[in-house]
Amino acid sequence: MSKLPFPILTADEAAALVADGSTVGFSGFTSTGQTKLIPQAIAARAKALHAEGKRFKINVITGASTSGELDGALAEAEAINWRTPYQSNAIQRKSINEGRMRYFDMHLSQVQPWLRAGFLGKVDWAVLEAAEVRADGSILLTTSIGATNTLARLADKVLIELNDAHPAAIYGLHDIYEPADPPHRQPIPIVTVRDRVGNPLLQLRPSQIAGIVTNHALDNVKDYDEPDPATIAIGANVANFLVAERRAGRLPDGLPFQSGVGNIANAVTEAMAQNKEIPNFSLYSEVIQDGILSLIDQGRVDFASGTAVSFTPSVLSKVYANWNQYKDKLILRPMEISNSPEMVRRLGIITINTALEFDINGNVNSTHTLGRQIMNGIGGSGDFTRNAHLSIFTCPSVRKDGALSSIVPVCSHIDHSEHSVDILVTEHGVADLRGKDPTERAEEIISRTVDPQYRDLLRAYVRSCGTVHAQVNTDKSAIFHQAFARFKDMRKAADLL
Amino acid sequence: MSKLPFPILTADEAAALVADGSTVGFSGFTSTGQTKLIPQAIAARAKALHAEGKRFKINVITGASTSGELDGALAEAEAINWRTPYQSNAIQRKSINEGRMRYFDMHLSQVQPWLRAGFLGKVDWAVLEAAEVRADGSILLTTSIGATNTLARLADKVLIELNDAHPAAIYGLHDIYEPADPPHRQPIPIVTVRDRVGNPLLQLRPSQIAGIVTNHALDNVKDYDEPDPATIAIGANVANFLVAERRAGRLPDGLPFQSGVGNIANAVTEAMAQNKEIPNFSLYSEVIQDGILSLIDQGRVDFASGTAVSFTPSVLSKVYANWNQYKDKLILRPMEISNSPEMVRRLGIITINTALEFDINGNVNSTHTLGRQIMNGIGGSGDFTRNAHLSIFTCPSVRKDGALSSIVPVCSHIDHSEHSVDILVTEHGVADLRGKDPTERAEEIISRTVDPQYRDLLRAYVRSCGTVHAQVNTDKSAIFHQAFARFKDMRKAADLL
Repeated sequence: MSKLPFPILTADEAAALVADGSTVGFSGFTSTGQTKLIPQAIAARAKALHAEGKRFKINVITGASTSGELDGALAEAEAINWRTPYQSNAIQRKSINEGRMRYFDMHLSQVQPWLRAGFLGKVDWAVLEAAEVRADGSILLTTSIGATNTLARLADKVLIELNDAHPAAIYGLHDIYEPADPPHRQPIPIVTVRDRVGNPLLQLRPSQIAGIVTNHALDNVKDYDEPDPATIAIGANVANFLVAERRAGRLPDGLPFQSGVGNIANAVTEAMAQNKEIPNFSLYSEVIQDGILSLIDQGRVDFASGTAVSFTPSVLSKVYANWNQYKDKLILRPMEISNSPEMVRRLGIITINTALEFDINGNVNSTHTLGRQIMNGIGGSGDFTRNAHLSIFTCPSVRKDGALSSIVPVCSHIDHSEHSVDILVTEHGVADLRGKDPTERAEEIISRTVDPQYRDLLRAYVRSCGTVHAQVNTDKSAIFHQAFARFKDMRKAADLL
Repeated sequence: MSKLPFPILTADEAAALVADGSTVGFSGFTSTGQTKLIPQAIAARAKALHAEGKRFKINVITGASTSGELDGALAEAEAINWRTPYQSNAIQRKSINEGRMRYFDMHLSQVQPWLRAGFLGKVDWAVLEAAEVRADGSILLTTSIGATNTLARLADKVLIELNDAHPAAIYGLHDIYEPADPPHRQPIPIVTVRDRVGNPLLQLRPSQIAGIVTNHALDNVKDYDEPDPATIAIGANVANFLVAERRAGRLPDGLPFQSGVGNIANAVTEAMAQNKEIPNFSLYSEVIQDGILSLIDQGRVDFASGTAVSFTPSVLSKVYANWNQYKDKLILRPMEISNSPEMVRRLGIITINTALEFDINGNVNSTHTLGRQIMNGIGGSGDFTRNAHLSIFTCPSVRKDGALSSIVPVCSHIDHSEHSVDILVTEHGVADLRGKDPTERAEEIISRTVDPQYRDLLRAYVRSCGTVHAQVNTDKSAIFHQAFARFKDMRKAADLL
């Protein structure tokens, strides 16, 4: 590294370069591949300046959520003015919901096109984690791509956190392809999940590189909880549904799957793998977690394409130590490619995402609790759902010991409209909305997915709608949320009907 | 025609072939290119059978809406059991909203893939309008394609209404391309609006053709009303917004436009054409109306790609009489191509659609009045909006002499979520939602698009939400709709706040 023609800086020296009001594009997607020392140093600088009564806030653009060392530290320091496109940090969430930080919650596939179109303003700095930096300005990224390639290309200046916990031997994990913008765009030349169409390295202009900070720490990726019985049942219900579709001749082999992040997503892919009637499958998804690597090891997953690997440290070490074995099984793409509407429709992806709540008309809320408070954000769920071959949403039928039904008369916030939602799955069963009108949908959803203690109540709501097309009664559509707000128990909605 | 190896039938003979319970795919999109005699004969047969106490209902799949001779006649005869994907007929709308007909309202781009995937069941009959039938079973369609090519290929049997009001000289208007299904699909090879990638003729298997009925009548396409001052102001606001974007370097020349159907759409394209700062433009849209042809004649529109031409008879006659002049300016594609997510994102389409209502968070209702009664359907608005380079929605700020505000606290039905809606336009102005958080969006929408008599009321609603991310107060979110339901006047919502 001593031969590199770029300044070596401390994190504090790097942070000192970033001015108040700057827009900073950070690498990172789902808490992997983000810088850690530089954002913490920026946060410390913000605190110090605030203590002196000076203003210091930046605008933050990332791939998706990042860890406490970035989103958490900057939010805690009140150092963020504006943030897009996604977050999942508790401190930041509180700051957003209390109106102390402006948050623009956007479809992930649109971030890179919007950056190029100028809709998100100018990018002053890109701050990137790299496994290797070469003298010609090309760099090897680490465990995510997200929007990093576009943020880096558009930024005036770049700061690099060179992290030797990631070996340069992972050359080939990344496939960086940035399409030309309309009206000059050509077809994205990917026709199977495993196609390589780009560059393993990200090419920067050497003049952009303002400095390099060294780091040695891996991302602190946490393992998910052991699945509970409801989660296991949801996984089995999805797998059984897929088997039934395949038997009915409606599920050709070879369609890739997209699967969200978390416990339910893990349970679904695990249940698919355990079901002998489901052939080996591939993923064209966002985030590749430990569970998928285990299925690759078992030979049940042929290939996984994503924009981030979110492996716990021991699994990541295993992949790095055996990279030759995995390099034909894994690929990371920029998120405008991993989440591309063009790719989703062409590949015929079966999408499986988790809902916060859904309603008896088939609308899905992915983002807001009680319609008001942001949970995380829409992320890629819209990119995949909107263009899927078949869109599936999952969630447990109840939460909070039954006091909260995930199925309500009308969602308190709608991210995915009934037109884009095909299959709904809880631990109780599978509602198939395809071809059904709203009256049929309501009964399908109530009888197959709702917890038994809420079925009569939802049927009573349906009767209250009278003769209508959509099952909406604007006098009563919020009774579940009102009951929860007042009594912390949606069962009390019966008193409001 | 006497040499054709297919039976010539009367409409009644053709109708007699269609059994109760059949699924019939009819040609037709936005009341053009549909058969007229056969569906009327099927309706008459249904009435006669019903009079005898016999059951007769069919399932109807089309491109989009059709005319009174098809949707109206069949609905009036109570001859439809189930209908997809779109309709706009008053008799049918009433039947759906009264629960006498099952209606599945779906994204138009998905109809053809879903037919092939088997999600919509088996197609027994295709009933198509043709300008020419050849002995090898190839046919020249008329003024729309929609889903006709897929319906015809999948149908057991085909009935053709051969209509000599459409000359065989319009060879080349159609470009029929049906992609392979995933996992074998290749990129759609279109990179500019004018690219031809398919076949001008629709190839049927001769054994499919059960008979030909002859007709001589053009579709009764009605001209739209003269625009009122609000509509003209909406058009001007869109054009001025586009000019400002272009001046700011955010609107590259050459991006095609999609424009919905109706008065506002006409006013928008007319205002764009009149504005000297907007270069000549092209359309990649669904329906091409008279107004666009006039702009082609003026040299302001370079090319129009759609899935239907909806020309009034005199304009259609002019196009037919001068086809050599227009054949390099017009093309019709199957609706899975005209509305393709892949094409919309690749071409970078600026989409302009009409909203029934929108809310202060930026959600749009395109389909349901007061959340309950279907108006028409989602049509292609989702296909375009979801994947647009920039998505614009327009509507007048008030209707019914001010008693109904098009902008409400929370939409009574949400077809397009805030994440997919970029720009909202009324006669009062333009709200630019890009990059804004919900608090900023609410004020942008209220101050720029809401009628002045509703601004304070909506600001009072915003205050009632307290400290939140999304501007939602589940106790008060329906007050506008409740006031309209009770008092026929949303201004009375003040009493409910």
